[in-house]
Amino acid sequence: MTVELICVGTELLLGNIVNTNAAYLAEKCAGLGLSCYFQTVVGDNEERLSQVLRTAMERSDIVILSGGLGPTEDDLTKETAARVCGRHLEMHEESRKAIERYFAAKGVEPTANNWKQAMLPEGAIALENHNGTAPGVILELTGAKVVLLPGPPGELCPMFEESVEPYLAGLTSQVICSRTVKICGVGESRAETMVKDLIDGQTNPTIATYAKTGEVHIRVTAGAQDKKEAMKLIKPVVKELKYRFGNDIYTTEEDTTLEKAVADLLQANELTVACAESCTGGLLAARLVNVPGISDVFKTSVVTYSNKAKKRLLGVKKSTLQKHGAVSQETAEEMAKGAAAQLKADVAVAVTGIAGPDGGTEEKPVGLVYIGCHVKGKTTVKKYQFSGNRNRVREAAVSAALALLRSCILEYFSKVTFGSKE
Amino acid sequence: MTVELICVGTELLLGNIVNTNAAYLAEKCAGLGLSCYFQTVVGDNEERLSQVLRTAMERSDIVILSGGLGPTEDDLTKETAARVCGRHLEMHEESRKAIERYFAAKGVEPTANNWKQAMLPEGAIALENHNGTAPGVILELTGAKVVLLPGPPGELCPMFEESVEPYLAGLTSQVICSRTVKICGVGESRAETMVKDLIDGQTNPTIATYAKTGEVHIRVTAGAQDKKEAMKLIKPVVKELKYRFGNDIYTTEEDTTLEKAVADLLQANELTVACAESCTGGLLAARLVNVPGISDVFKTSVVTYSNKAKKRLLGVKKSTLQKHGAVSQETAEEMAKGAAAQLKADVAVAVTGIAGPDGGTEEKPVGLVYIGCHVKGKTTVKKYQFSGNRNRVREAAVSAALALLRSCILEYFSKVTFGSKE
Repeated sequence: MTVELICVGTELLLGNIVNTNAAYLAEKCAGLGLSCYFQTVVGDNEERLSQVLRTAMERSDIVILSGGLGPTEDDLTKETAARVCGRHLEMHEESRKAIERYFAAKGVEPTANNWKQAMLPEGAIALENHNGTAPGVILELTGAKVVLLPGPPGELCPMFEESVEPYLAGLTSQVICSRTVKICGVGESRAETMVKDLIDGQTNPTIATYAKTGEVHIRVTAGAQDKKEAMKLIKPVVKELKYRFGNDIYTTEEDTTLEKAVADLLQANELTVACAESCTGGLLAARLVNVPGISDVFKTSVVTYSNKAKKRLLGVKKSTLQKHGAVSQETAEEMAKGAAAQLKADVAVAVTGIAGPDGGTEEKPVGLVYIGCHVKGKTTVKKYQFSGNRNRVREAAVSAALALLRSCILEYFSKVTFGSKE
Repeated sequence: MTVELICVGTELLLGNIVNTNAAYLAEKCAGLGLSCYFQTVVGDNEERLSQVLRTAMERSDIVILSGGLGPTEDDLTKETAARVCGRHLEMHEESRKAIERYFAAKGVEPTANNWKQAMLPEGAIALENHNGTAPGVILELTGAKVVLLPGPPGELCPMFEESVEPYLAGLTSQVICSRTVKICGVGESRAETMVKDLIDGQTNPTIATYAKTGEVHIRVTAGAQDKKEAMKLIKPVVKELKYRFGNDIYTTEEDTTLEKAVADLLQANELTVACAESCTGGLLAARLVNVPGISDVFKTSVVTYSNKAKKRLLGVKKSTLQKHGAVSQETAEEMAKGAAAQLKADVAVAVTGIAGPDGGTEEKPVGLVYIGCHVKGKTTVKKYQFSGNRNRVREAAVSAALALLRSCILEYFSKVTFGSKE
């Protein structure tokens, strides 16, 4: 069964707001096992909206529209949909009363145009709006089902979950489930090459790779009659991926980020961590502090941007800086060691590099980064060459630092498994 | 002249990611005076992409596609567009060399599928990609111009600004110019109220307000025959805005961010700065380090997440923490003073707050943040109550800290003007 999304609003066409409704509805529909092949954005314009709606109704089983149900003259989604579907608008008594109650509760007089919102296409299913005045609408036509939802996410999301999701679930017999295997420290091309035979050979489950900064996510998706059956199809593929990528997999949990996986590993091993950052300027510490409850293991960190700060706060030797420079294997090593000692942490990560746009030389180009990781007495330093602008270099360095931190801890405690909860 | 956007990617149809590219491109196109009536999202599927592209080419003058230029088999935007436009793909020597250089710089061997990215439609204009391996493409057909851009925002945005924006600007006879007045420390509603009469009264130039975290941008846009004429229309409106908002305007320069304005102010007054962060965990320092050349004024910073770290690194008194707590006026003040003294900086900013989701109480709810700012002996502390999730609270706190830092320096050096280069 196919679904198609139409988001209505000039502010989307002008780029004033990001279309979070489309992402929300798409994810919900995918979870219901509906195939979504098209999303369209169109303005509050009757002719163009009619054109888009007709096309959608021809090629999809369900069409969900959002936006344009407000009380103003600009809002014409309902009027247009009614016309395209050949239905008249009529006053919907319950919706009229709901609007009356809504304004009474606020102690405000409704304006004349508010009553327009209680006019619904004849024969429509009305969807109650507990967070605003525009009721939603489901129109059941012979060809397609048309669902109209209000645009504000605070109204759309609760209405979808309360009324539309159960309605749509009743229409389909199939369930779609997916599992994401998240990998760090392996490039996208290499990851893809490593699973190409699996991708080529499979139709259900399907396997797809997504590149994130410093990470690759592999999503395994299966359709079946029920969740149990779908998970049964997914399981052997996830097992095979675990075999192929081993410790490079940092999680198979949907909600777990790389920093969360690192935080879990630190917490499980009761290790405190400190960062000593130069070019990343605090971004690495901030990524760790993204994780709620990090205070168990994260106490303090420093940004040592100048040489003086590296000497004073981390005890990096003057001679090291003079001989090898601030961006060097040797400085990264002393920064990591110094951070562990000075900040009294079990584990320390140090980042020093040239983020650009200036400061690069032939020998040490922009994008060169050294990351040092000290775990209970042992220090590992790795050299990286990132590309892109200042921001990209810094973000890539942060992801690489988290990946290196993770692998150094795993190496130290080689008995610990890789954080998957299976 | 009309433009239409097609974003290609299964991850958009599945709702795995939010379509920020569409918002970015739409805003840019609106700024160029192009009318955008449709945006479409379609998957990596040849038939459906062809269908969508044909429709777009029939009804719009310019079609911009993003995504699907990667090296994998799934990526087929270029192949499909070439077929729809009746062009063969051929090896583009310069792009091939660029890919070679990209991998050589990384010290990594390209895989076979990487060369696919150097195959371009015959007669196409190639757009260099300085942040990845996929070149962009412009196809000039009799009916429409088709522009292909890579999907990752870190590649798409720089390529658009460098190559596509000037190209599109050359196609229109009218020149659209705009000037953005950037304001910090004033809420959106208040800013909007302050300019409502200007917005209501104007058609050319138009005035629009945009809310960013902790900032409001007011964009003044005018269309005219040439740039000089357009700027003549814009100038009196900008002057009026400067009169109304005064020192709350941190810049009228397009490229100047709040952190850049703060960095300029520090540099102009030869002041070094240090940060002492608790809940923001390094984000504030990282925002300042975003600014290239910050090393003149930014030497060092600390993240003092635990009470112990606040005492040891900043000299916050044990009694202060016991009596008032870590999130208090008094602790923020001692953190700021301590950072200036311990890190030997002229100016210091301290942030302490409750980012959530846990840790809030009735007296000190999630979102409560104290920011202290110490400028050459004088310390100012302000209390804030932010809303939203952990991330939103932290980002709002960073923006507020930059705004407070700016206003404290301005107050101290009241002779200094507000950083506009006019």
